[in-house]
Amino acid sequence: MLYVRAATCIHCGAEYPPRPDLTVCAQCGGVLEILYDYPRIAAALNSAVLAERRETTMWRYRELLPIEADSDTAGLRVGWSPLYPAPRLAATLGLAELYIKDDGLNPTASLKDRASALAVIKAGEAGADTVACSSTGNAASSLAGSAAARGLRSYIFIPARAPKGKVAQLMMFGANVISVQGNYEDAFRLSAEAIERWGWYNRNAAINPYLSDGKKTVSLEIAEQLGWQVPDYVAVSVGDGCTIAGVWKGFQDLYEIGLIRRLPRLISVQATGCCPINQAIEAGTEDLIPMAEDTLADSIAVGRPRNFHKAVRAVRASGGITVNVSDQEILSAMALLGKTCGVFGEPAGVTGAAGLIKALAEKKIPAGATAVSIVTGNGLKDIANAVNAAGEPLSLPPDISQLSGIITK
Amino acid sequence: MLYVRAATCIHCGAEYPPRPDLTVCAQCGGVLEILYDYPRIAAALNSAVLAERRETTMWRYRELLPIEADSDTAGLRVGWSPLYPAPRLAATLGLAELYIKDDGLNPTASLKDRASALAVIKAGEAGADTVACSSTGNAASSLAGSAAARGLRSYIFIPARAPKGKVAQLMMFGANVISVQGNYEDAFRLSAEAIERWGWYNRNAAINPYLSDGKKTVSLEIAEQLGWQVPDYVAVSVGDGCTIAGVWKGFQDLYEIGLIRRLPRLISVQATGCCPINQAIEAGTEDLIPMAEDTLADSIAVGRPRNFHKAVRAVRASGGITVNVSDQEILSAMALLGKTCGVFGEPAGVTGAAGLIKALAEKKIPAGATAVSIVTGNGLKDIANAVNAAGEPLSLPPDISQLSGIITK
Repeated sequence: MLYVRAATCIHCGAEYPPRPDLTVCAQCGGVLEILYDYPRIAAALNSAVLAERRETTMWRYRELLPIEADSDTAGLRVGWSPLYPAPRLAATLGLAELYIKDDGLNPTASLKDRASALAVIKAGEAGADTVACSSTGNAASSLAGSAAARGLRSYIFIPARAPKGKVAQLMMFGANVISVQGNYEDAFRLSAEAIERWGWYNRNAAINPYLSDGKKTVSLEIAEQLGWQVPDYVAVSVGDGCTIAGVWKGFQDLYEIGLIRRLPRLISVQATGCCPINQAIEAGTEDLIPMAEDTLADSIAVGRPRNFHKAVRAVRASGGITVNVSDQEILSAMALLGKTCGVFGEPAGVTGAAGLIKALAEKKIPAGATAVSIVTGNGLKDIANAVNAAGEPLSLPPDISQLSGIITK
Repeated sequence: MLYVRAATCIHCGAEYPPRPDLTVCAQCGGVLEILYDYPRIAAALNSAVLAERRETTMWRYRELLPIEADSDTAGLRVGWSPLYPAPRLAATLGLAELYIKDDGLNPTASLKDRASALAVIKAGEAGADTVACSSTGNAASSLAGSAAARGLRSYIFIPARAPKGKVAQLMMFGANVISVQGNYEDAFRLSAEAIERWGWYNRNAAINPYLSDGKKTVSLEIAEQLGWQVPDYVAVSVGDGCTIAGVWKGFQDLYEIGLIRRLPRLISVQATGCCPINQAIEAGTEDLIPMAEDTLADSIAVGRPRNFHKAVRAVRASGGITVNVSDQEILSAMALLGKTCGVFGEPAGVTGAAGLIKALAEKKIPAGATAVSIVTGNGLKDIANAVNAAGEPLSLPPDISQLSGIITK
């Protein structure tokens, strides 16, 4: 890796050489972070260099990624998802500019593809032929898909409540799927034991420090797609904390190498029924108080977030704000994004947008601001909730006279 | 439109000026085809010009598309879907090279987005603020999504039996959905009457001659992604015939302007339970004998194909072959593509691949050939059949001793 200096523990500061199979801090169990040599990256990478690149995947930012110079990035086409301007919705909400980053258009239909695409490359560097994780859904299907594309075996541990669509997706990718009779914690513990025993490559979120560097590519893209102009706010749905930590790291990286001149403020959005990260931020502590997982947005129903500290610090460092939204507000945001932008997100995928809308309504952010909302997963992953959000169509006999009474034009 | 000469009826040869609201031939009711000025396109467009373009959507081929020079193409990001090399699957099947074109990664998750993206632009050129079609599936959701992204109203007519999940997607995009108490023919007739009465823009397949020029962009991309080398075979699933006709037109266009030096042979794949186009090709006639719609691949369950003639002629002109596959062969192909390529297609989406596999097994095409299989829709659209194809996961208590009995390595 040309530009990676080391991995460091965010708790005790211990440093480690960047072996491909790093997990947590050997001394204190803390989460690790990858450190880069920013001056050397700044010398190699600038906007003109990037403008010349034809690679329209996350690998266009290779200097900022923790992979070896000669690592083969063949696999699914991950990243470079569209950033849609949403001028009509912006006007309705009172924003000067609003952009929707639709990461549901990644190959397995979620932002998690960015982490998994990196994980399978690191697995290859580690000489592993098998990758594993526990997940409620998107991390799992993305790992299964990326593994299949590169001819790796995968073992996936899921809690019993995982939605059928997500399970079917990873079964289709030929993963060895273990549905654990219990909750997410049970699935996680069993995966950890199995990974240890059989020596599989570990793609558990927060445990594997490389994953957030995959996720950060969403921010690199947002900045480049905006011509290196940074929005005032970036709204992100938050579950285990890895995604928002990755989003923040992406902007930090760009700031460090001088590609952007300021940093956005993060809007950390959780479900009212499961918001331990936001509660800690609001309480001004770094103590995690686990919560029940009472929300239909299954991908962010994480009562004991694994990347709690990184997430809390990211939101604080950005001067960010927290917003908690009800399930009904999530479903309303889903319908609003569909109707005004043609973007169909899953509940957790649009939770960031729901929070942005609420923050504006509550004047937590000023009218006239600029904002990006990241849609983290595709609505086709959770049709049951789409049916809840969408309502029923009009039913009519095949008779135009009955139709003419209801056509509004 | 710089390079469109006219529209011509494929039956009677009548020619029409290319108004944006063209439908079928005013004289005989036949399907129209858009004619281009190939010599002038060849003078303007070549591989070097294309290599310089940064546009990674279907609009990179603007010279070959029937839109006005100044038409705004803002909207969903349609096209430039990945073409994945599948070397392991190729080796298993005995092909020299195999590529999977994953069009399920379009914004509303099907190839139909290419047609709908064009339709909403033509609607704008026609001055319409409302678009309409009848469909139970991908055409409808793609139209609703593309319309929402551009602030157009949409009316979608569906038969009463349309599956809830697909209806939900339409409703999410804010479409006015009319559930017609009757079958598909009833919904089609009511849509035709309503379109006529209220002057909406018509996106009914085969009726609107521009749609297949949207679809043809899949072939333009395949050729460019292969460095203008043409595969021996292109496998396509076939329902109403519009897609395979579009695929053929794309290759024809490139051949006419000299960007490719030969044409591929088409593999027209239908479900055994609904294969009227293949039956006619095999019987050597151009007479349509409608069939029942007995297949789980709902997107190609079309007993009375609306673009029958164009499809039959395309397959014949290419020196192509026909293959009919059972529902079980479709589900097997679904699992095989998922497992070996990380590509998850809906049943109709992988029917082309199922046919390619069967054609190789039956030695209808030679070992050592090169082939592209187009996946036309995402598997997340039809989770019920994915569950059928993939099976259920292994359910276990959170106890590693029970796991150790089943780990194979």
